[in-house]
Amino acid sequence: MNVAAKLRKDPILQRWVIISPERVELQRPPPLWRPKGIPPEECPFCPGNEGRTPSEVFSLRDPGTAPNTPGWWVRVIPDQHPILGIERGLERSAEGMYDTMNAFGAHEIVVETPEHEQHWAVLDDIQLVRVFLAYRERMWDLRSDERFRHIIVIKYHGTPLSPFQHQHSHLVATPFIPKVVEDELKGAAEHYRWKERCIFCDVLKEELNTQARVIWESEGFLAFVPFASRLPYEAWIVPKGHASQFNQIQEPGLKELVLGVKTILSKLRKALHDPPYSLVLHASPLNDFPREEYHWHLEIAAQLPQTLGFGWGVAISVNPLPPEQAAAHLRAG
Amino acid sequence: MNVAAKLRKDPILQRWVIISPERVELQRPPPLWRPKGIPPEECPFCPGNEGRTPSEVFSLRDPGTAPNTPGWWVRVIPDQHPILGIERGLERSAEGMYDTMNAFGAHEIVVETPEHEQHWAVLDDIQLVRVFLAYRERMWDLRSDERFRHIIVIKYHGTPLSPFQHQHSHLVATPFIPKVVEDELKGAAEHYRWKERCIFCDVLKEELNTQARVIWESEGFLAFVPFASRLPYEAWIVPKGHASQFNQIQEPGLKELVLGVKTILSKLRKALHDPPYSLVLHASPLNDFPREEYHWHLEIAAQLPQTLGFGWGVAISVNPLPPEQAAAHLRAG
Repeated sequence: MNVAAKLRKDPILQRWVIISPERVELQRPPPLWRPKGIPPEECPFCPGNEGRTPSEVFSLRDPGTAPNTPGWWVRVIPDQHPILGIERGLERSAEGMYDTMNAFGAHEIVVETPEHEQHWAVLDDIQLVRVFLAYRERMWDLRSDERFRHIIVIKYHGTPLSPFQHQHSHLVATPFIPKVVEDELKGAAEHYRWKERCIFCDVLKEELNTQARVIWESEGFLAFVPFASRLPYEAWIVPKGHASQFNQIQEPGLKELVLGVKTILSKLRKALHDPPYSLVLHASPLNDFPREEYHWHLEIAAQLPQTLGFGWGVAISVNPLPPEQAAAHLRAG
Repeated sequence: MNVAAKLRKDPILQRWVIISPERVELQRPPPLWRPKGIPPEECPFCPGNEGRTPSEVFSLRDPGTAPNTPGWWVRVIPDQHPILGIERGLERSAEGMYDTMNAFGAHEIVVETPEHEQHWAVLDDIQLVRVFLAYRERMWDLRSDERFRHIIVIKYHGTPLSPFQHQHSHLVATPFIPKVVEDELKGAAEHYRWKERCIFCDVLKEELNTQARVIWESEGFLAFVPFASRLPYEAWIVPKGHASQFNQIQEPGLKELVLGVKTILSKLRKALHDPPYSLVLHASPLNDFPREEYHWHLEIAAQLPQTLGFGWGVAISVNPLPPEQAAAHLRAG
């Protein structure tokens, strides 16, 4: 038992995490998972192979080029094996005492660059702005279907969940609010009920005040390691101004956000030798279910081997790296 | 998109799970993770090596044998590298806006048999009864410390979380309620508020009624695959009579429970070629925080490769195996 070990409570999720410095030596990240190498000529995400995917639902492209032909910078297509689909309606029903509905939803792939293999850390700023523009535009379009409750954007890098080496992300519109977001919403609502303040705004203020966990700051955004991080290297990028919806962001904000994303990913890449990571955009539910007290943000997490604590089956997390040390390491990187 | 795909809602956690049959071929379980082979003469859990562990806090042993010497059937010792410890008190404090406390708690290891390597599926009934007796006795003892809010028992088999091949489980007393249990408690409380009935009792009735997901049944217990399982092979063993606390169980009940555990583990072992698994005992919080509307149970889950859905970072789960098929497979096994 390390005497410096502490329990820290996540102020949003009200979840206790064990921060146990040096309980065991922090392991190096696992090697990047490499998908079976698909050469560019066979890659469905490469220019010239547009016919190998479903028709695009959105693209940013050279004026004068036709849909589903080369000339695009960012291309959004339905996933060929979607986890949710729109073929059938919602059809809520009971099965005995239980509730079911059809696996209704939208699952799209955002192909982030025409180049076959390119790390986000070295992507041109303008190209990454286009990626976030594509997220925003798809969100505006999808929210017109009132059966969708929530849209999540998620990107995996270097994990078995990213089977193509060609950079891409997932955009999933769901008829329910994913549990992780629902838990954050509950925490935000509870805090608002007691204090009439946004919990995320309070966290921002605290982080700006102490600076101990800050990694990067711009006029409009703050990147920091959360106080009760479950994972050794976790970083949030949060807009300083209160905003529940991502899709109201404008281009100056996007440019700043992209700079933050690139900075964090470059630091992670340098400090941890290109670890696998996930990047998730958390935003308020849609339409009839918006939550003004919510605060959209990006969560980036490097994936290190999780042999600590009792994650599987119990979710008692042990983080061997105090967030202040993680932040210092990333700031220096 | 498989047209048979359905969304199912977990009635306790209120979490939607995508049940997407045959979306991809179900993968075989990963090979059992084998710890570095420690020969019995060096194994700290083998009889004769009692001096290599901290002093026992409990044992069931041959009358006339002394503590910390051979002659025991089940031996409970403090974990040598505990995730929580009792050296320092709770000392709740604020750190800016955040809440912290010392990593206070108890972390014990239950050495389940004197034999160096033995699968639970083939352990003698009487020996497994002793293991559950040890859990019960330790729970009675630990609950006398009023700072503990909850005790969880967890066993891992064949995963990197079980570094010794000698069979053992963890007993962890925490000054907080683990998130997974807290979520179940909230669901149970909400159901009770509306219906004045236990949600687990309702689920039992439904499962007994439809039989579609039942794997095994005895006079006092039911084993079934939950309706909205997140994992392809998940099994719960639930006492038919309402009981919030495990530690009130008596020996006839223990014998039945052990029979159920062995049956499920044997079936998993046969159907899936000895997969890694976790086994977790969920029971009500302690002392000042008991929840009469809760219903204790065991959750057993085989670990198959989780390359489906967006588990990591979002927790939108996709289960490719309808629970009815899993139950049929296990019933036949």
